[in-house]
Amino acid sequence: MGNLTGVFTILREAQKQLALAGRKEKDEGLQAVMNAIDEDREAILAANKQDVERARASGMKEALVDRLALNDKRINEMIAGVEVVLRQEDPIGRVLDGWTLPNGLFIEKVTVPLGTCAIIYESRPNVTVDAFCLAYKAGCSILLRGSSAALESNRALVASIRRALASVNRFPDTVALADSGSRDEVDEILSARGLVDVVIPRGGRDLIRRVVDNARVPVIETGEGNCHIYVEPSADFQNAVDIVENAKIQKPGACNAVETLLVHRDAAEVFIPLVAQRLAGRVLLRCCDRSRAVLEKAQNIPSSLKIEPATEADWATEYLDYILAVKVVDSLDEAITHINRYGTKHSEAILTNDLAASQEFEKRVDAACAYTNASIRFTDGGQFGFGAELGISTQKFHARGPMGLEALTTIKYRVRGTGQIRE
Amino acid sequence: MGNLTGVFTILREAQKQLALAGRKEKDEGLQAVMNAIDEDREAILAANKQDVERARASGMKEALVDRLALNDKRINEMIAGVEVVLRQEDPIGRVLDGWTLPNGLFIEKVTVPLGTCAIIYESRPNVTVDAFCLAYKAGCSILLRGSSAALESNRALVASIRRALASVNRFPDTVALADSGSRDEVDEILSARGLVDVVIPRGGRDLIRRVVDNARVPVIETGEGNCHIYVEPSADFQNAVDIVENAKIQKPGACNAVETLLVHRDAAEVFIPLVAQRLAGRVLLRCCDRSRAVLEKAQNIPSSLKIEPATEADWATEYLDYILAVKVVDSLDEAITHINRYGTKHSEAILTNDLAASQEFEKRVDAACAYTNASIRFTDGGQFGFGAELGISTQKFHARGPMGLEALTTIKYRVRGTGQIRE
Repeated sequence: MGNLTGVFTILREAQKQLALAGRKEKDEGLQAVMNAIDEDREAILAANKQDVERARASGMKEALVDRLALNDKRINEMIAGVEVVLRQEDPIGRVLDGWTLPNGLFIEKVTVPLGTCAIIYESRPNVTVDAFCLAYKAGCSILLRGSSAALESNRALVASIRRALASVNRFPDTVALADSGSRDEVDEILSARGLVDVVIPRGGRDLIRRVVDNARVPVIETGEGNCHIYVEPSADFQNAVDIVENAKIQKPGACNAVETLLVHRDAAEVFIPLVAQRLAGRVLLRCCDRSRAVLEKAQNIPSSLKIEPATEADWATEYLDYILAVKVVDSLDEAITHINRYGTKHSEAILTNDLAASQEFEKRVDAACAYTNASIRFTDGGQFGFGAELGISTQKFHARGPMGLEALTTIKYRVRGTGQIRE
Repeated sequence: MGNLTGVFTILREAQKQLALAGRKEKDEGLQAVMNAIDEDREAILAANKQDVERARASGMKEALVDRLALNDKRINEMIAGVEVVLRQEDPIGRVLDGWTLPNGLFIEKVTVPLGTCAIIYESRPNVTVDAFCLAYKAGCSILLRGSSAALESNRALVASIRRALASVNRFPDTVALADSGSRDEVDEILSARGLVDVVIPRGGRDLIRRVVDNARVPVIETGEGNCHIYVEPSADFQNAVDIVENAKIQKPGACNAVETLLVHRDAAEVFIPLVAQRLAGRVLLRCCDRSRAVLEKAQNIPSSLKIEPATEADWATEYLDYILAVKVVDSLDEAITHINRYGTKHSEAILTNDLAASQEFEKRVDAACAYTNASIRFTDGGQFGFGAELGISTQKFHARGPMGLEALTTIKYRVRGTGQIRE
């Protein structure tokens, strides 16, 4: 028996009650949480300040400190995220299908909560609130296992959430924080067969690999994004440059940032120099031989442009940095084959005005999101309109792409008879 | 590199082609398979005869030999199963949802094939055809790993299927038989991360446990069925006796047979003797103290009735035999609590005329199928109208209950823009 056994038992019992709650009760709980986070704002910010100071003292990089740090605006965003979820329809009790057998037996397929969930995540405290509110609305209980760097922030947030739910008598025991900070806790979650219905790792590649390799409970893999943009000769090149810039620079550390730019050979001579001009001084280009040759011949390339030769390893790398691999391909087929070989099934885009090419790309690319003529940075639960997200699934099993409420549901068949027996 | 690496590569390449096929092409393939199995009937029966003779010579129980044996009727049923699947709508390319973001980006959620599947199953050769036709219609390739006892039957069936698909030029390489008979083959399937998108074990508890414990690829657990029927005082007792008899005796070895009968205390004195009279001489009853006391007091109990005291272990046992556990409960709540504690989330029934009780049972019982007033033997892909089934999922993740075409699909988001970038 591990340390979390008692916690799982409480979560499971509370979930049984929450599963029976209607939308009204659940929304009352969420409204109370919105109010409480607003009211507890100072305590939450004070707790977060402790985490941030500890992080800086331990030498955490400023980019990571930024992910950890809360401020009024971020707290407002958390609250707004809960509100979007509150306003969504109840994902539970929806009849997805229904039919009557020849013998009169009536079958209905209805959505029900998945059960008790766990999320293992890194420093961003907003994940605490996002994951809670999605689980709660979907009738699931949730164990939150945040990073030790965000411990005080998460304690303050979870305390606020639980107090709010208790104050309106709406299932406060459906949420718990695993806060011992020990790695044993993660192992205990990963081996909790029969106690945890799904574990979602949300963070860097190492965390996700560790979870996938060791879990004996169902897992949804998230967020590894080696994403591509493929540019055809018929694309609007000015717009295409905007899209490549947006997908690379707007947030290079995001899983939906572009890592490799694929350019059709007939677009290469004009388009690659345009990209280089736009990104010079900001992004290092790792170029295949053909794209390098194009740039060496081109006029008007700023001296601030940095280029390195790409190696095989570049095609498989998620840089999460101001680096972009560039490769010239001979055809749409070559682009799709490259993507399906090196991609992580996350988000892939074609920029083109060729309808047949767009359709072929959409069909053949094996990814959660296949884009035509837009930045792949839109792959996000908030952007998609889900209010919050549990993460972006890069697997095909159970959930794919940005995960909102639906990822936390399953189905049940209701079968109603008048005494039927099987012949 | 294991022995199956080459097989997986071929299956995956063929699946990419099949994924692009329309319904017409897939149905042409299925029609050719129906014709071929009919034409190859004698060869298939001859191969099956070899398996049956070998099985009998090795001392296999007749009940198991019966599961292995084919005859004209069973071959006709196989063909009929393919036809039902052929007539079903294409599960691929269905738009499940679609919306436009404020910036004009249009998002569609579309069904796509899950990919390359594997099924590990025991002696019934009809599973070979069922699994193939569902996978094929869902645009998936499939590796069939049947039992060595059915090796010749499966070889003949798969050869017939592949010849049929080749004759109409419709993706013959989407189906393969793992026929080395070695257990290493199973281990290789279970560790084929990135090569196999799902593994479905279909067979006895030991097989399923072995797969679940060792798999590093996604698994759908199937078929463990410790199922209950709960009888209330308001039930139609004559009909309830019919249902209990049907659920216990019609096929005791099936996962959807009843294993424990729960009887409300106010129904016990009348109903338990009725059940005993009906089952006497055919079914052993393992009774709780209260149900035993009822039977000891009751009139007109045939001397052929066999009773034993139930122990705690009985509540957790899937007998798959002519044995029925019987327990008196004080309330609906006790019945539901018992079911959620000992059940395997498969099929559970309440027999009642009390609407509120039926509704509470449906809501609170955690099972794939919650029945009111019917035999639980209907939990079956064929009975549900799916034509064939891959098995009955007893997990909540990805698929639940009888698995037809939908269990082999996943989704993809198509995102179409006009140059949108993220602010």
